[in-house]
Amino acid sequence: MTAQRDITVGELGEKALLARILDALAGSSQAEIGPGDDAAVIAAPGGRVVVSTDTLVHGPDFRLAWSSGFDLGWKSAAVNLADIAAMGARPVALFVALALPDDTTAGFVDDLALGLRRACEALSPDCAVEGGDLTASDTLTIAVTALGVIDPDLRPVLRSGARPGDVVAVAGELGAAARGVGMLFDRFRDASGRPIAVDRGILTDAEEVDLDTQLRPRPPIAAGIAAARAGATAMMDVSDGLLLDATRLADASRATVRLAPTPESGLDDDALRGGEDHALLACFAPDAELPDGFRVIGRIDPRGAAAVTIDGVAVTGHLGWDPHRDWDAGRG
Amino acid sequence: MTAQRDITVGELGEKALLARILDALAGSSQAEIGPGDDAAVIAAPGGRVVVSTDTLVHGPDFRLAWSSGFDLGWKSAAVNLADIAAMGARPVALFVALALPDDTTAGFVDDLALGLRRACEALSPDCAVEGGDLTASDTLTIAVTALGVIDPDLRPVLRSGARPGDVVAVAGELGAAARGVGMLFDRFRDASGRPIAVDRGILTDAEEVDLDTQLRPRPPIAAGIAAARAGATAMMDVSDGLLLDATRLADASRATVRLAPTPESGLDDDALRGGEDHALLACFAPDAELPDGFRVIGRIDPRGAAAVTIDGVAVTGHLGWDPHRDWDAGRG
Repeated sequence: MTAQRDITVGELGEKALLARILDALAGSSQAEIGPGDDAAVIAAPGGRVVVSTDTLVHGPDFRLAWSSGFDLGWKSAAVNLADIAAMGARPVALFVALALPDDTTAGFVDDLALGLRRACEALSPDCAVEGGDLTASDTLTIAVTALGVIDPDLRPVLRSGARPGDVVAVAGELGAAARGVGMLFDRFRDASGRPIAVDRGILTDAEEVDLDTQLRPRPPIAAGIAAARAGATAMMDVSDGLLLDATRLADASRATVRLAPTPESGLDDDALRGGEDHALLACFAPDAELPDGFRVIGRIDPRGAAAVTIDGVAVTGHLGWDPHRDWDAGRG
Repeated sequence: MTAQRDITVGELGEKALLARILDALAGSSQAEIGPGDDAAVIAAPGGRVVVSTDTLVHGPDFRLAWSSGFDLGWKSAAVNLADIAAMGARPVALFVALALPDDTTAGFVDDLALGLRRACEALSPDCAVEGGDLTASDTLTIAVTALGVIDPDLRPVLRSGARPGDVVAVAGELGAAARGVGMLFDRFRDASGRPIAVDRGILTDAEEVDLDTQLRPRPPIAAGIAAARAGATAMMDVSDGLLLDATRLADASRATVRLAPTPESGLDDDALRGGEDHALLACFAPDAELPDGFRVIGRIDPRGAAAVTIDGVAVTGHLGWDPHRDWDAGRG
């Protein structure tokens, strides 16, 4: 494959491109019927499936100067796996609709397929890419739909089930991805604001961790299933910032989320307002035993004037991540 | 809603746009958990689901001068429903990832949502849009993933099951969509080749039918389930032309498809080589009773030198529809 990495998808044609992608994914399918027919067939032993879809678009969602094909494959898998985990479900299949400009290199697509595969293997080994679609487009677009199954003895965990007195907890990173994207905008653009390649040599180890969290997030997929098993009353993926997503959970549950930052909780401004870490925010009955990976960050109050408070004080200002505002300057 | 149809999605913002879409879809959800949480929950009583994804991209797949929002919503639903039906499954849910340029009007998106809804109601009433994603993009893109369920006493019908002696049959239109797109290219472009609005006043009734089949195809969804119930040995969606798709079925089944055109079968050149009607091509044991809607067009021979023959003569030349070649001239 290496010899042809620079050939473009326009030159290669759809059939040969598909063959390369299937080659990169070979042996990973765990479905009854995987890629190749009109549709895939996925087992759903509990009699129901959980489905979510999330798209990465060149421009609003990523820049090619900053993200490799591998990064984009990884991230598009990870963000969708997180949505499934946030329901307390076990991811089982990804479907990937790729829309590619003709000048995309085959090597980029190989890397993207590998990133999808490696993210599944690392984050959710029972899940693989089981189908997809290839189209030509002027704009590189990766639309992923994820399927999960709920263990037969469990129910899906919604945003709307939090009750006053519940403990509020979080699993996974908060703030690192926001520091990572801040670093990209602050330090890896040219004088006219255009993205330039990242020079990792000038980054500290901690900065590299932040950058990697932005480019290849590692949502705590197993923690979602563990939370469902521990009786979580409500759960959601923190994709747009803790304050904004906690507001959504509070509104859906008609309650107030009272955050209680402590020196240990790490709830600094990045953690409160930064997006894209794909941590899991969950609520548990006061007497529940928290599963591994979760740390307490507050509790549920009866609904007050504010959806979210910090130690009882209403939160104001910019709550979180808005991709339309925060990413739209400077395409590249 | 009417007063604000001309406002753009960039002006409206994601939250208000989503509210409009949910408004257009209101009451249609049939899922355990529909749109609004991290993921939808879909019942899969037979313990497995069938999943397919297909994307429409502005440029390669459609032109805004020719297709309304309603047309695009309808078509993006119909082509995905057809893939599910081609497995012998019952469509139950669509997930729609919309990537929209900021200057898209809200009215266009309203119409698109209505087209999705009406196509489900007309073609597959047990199915509805149960989730999706909104993103900004320079290129209007509609990526739909469809889920279906297989009746517990049936198996999925693959492309690979045809056996020598089987009857080859088809349900649905063949050729009309190709005539429709031919008409668009021949008669509704300006002197420089750019698409212009269709003047239906100059079309005959038959031409309007062809155009409607191109813009809003009506695949025979119920016939797919009926074929599975009648014991179809192989089946697929005819999306790229009968000859090309029959080649795929023949190759998957390691057999040869012998087409036997008759004056009644309507297998003219449009029917043989035209794409996008989304008919269903199916094979049945010689003694099977064909379900309603299917007509015999040939039989399965042992694999010979050619994948497809017409009365035993190998087919040559342009087999079918190639969106990268046939659509790519003249964006608009």
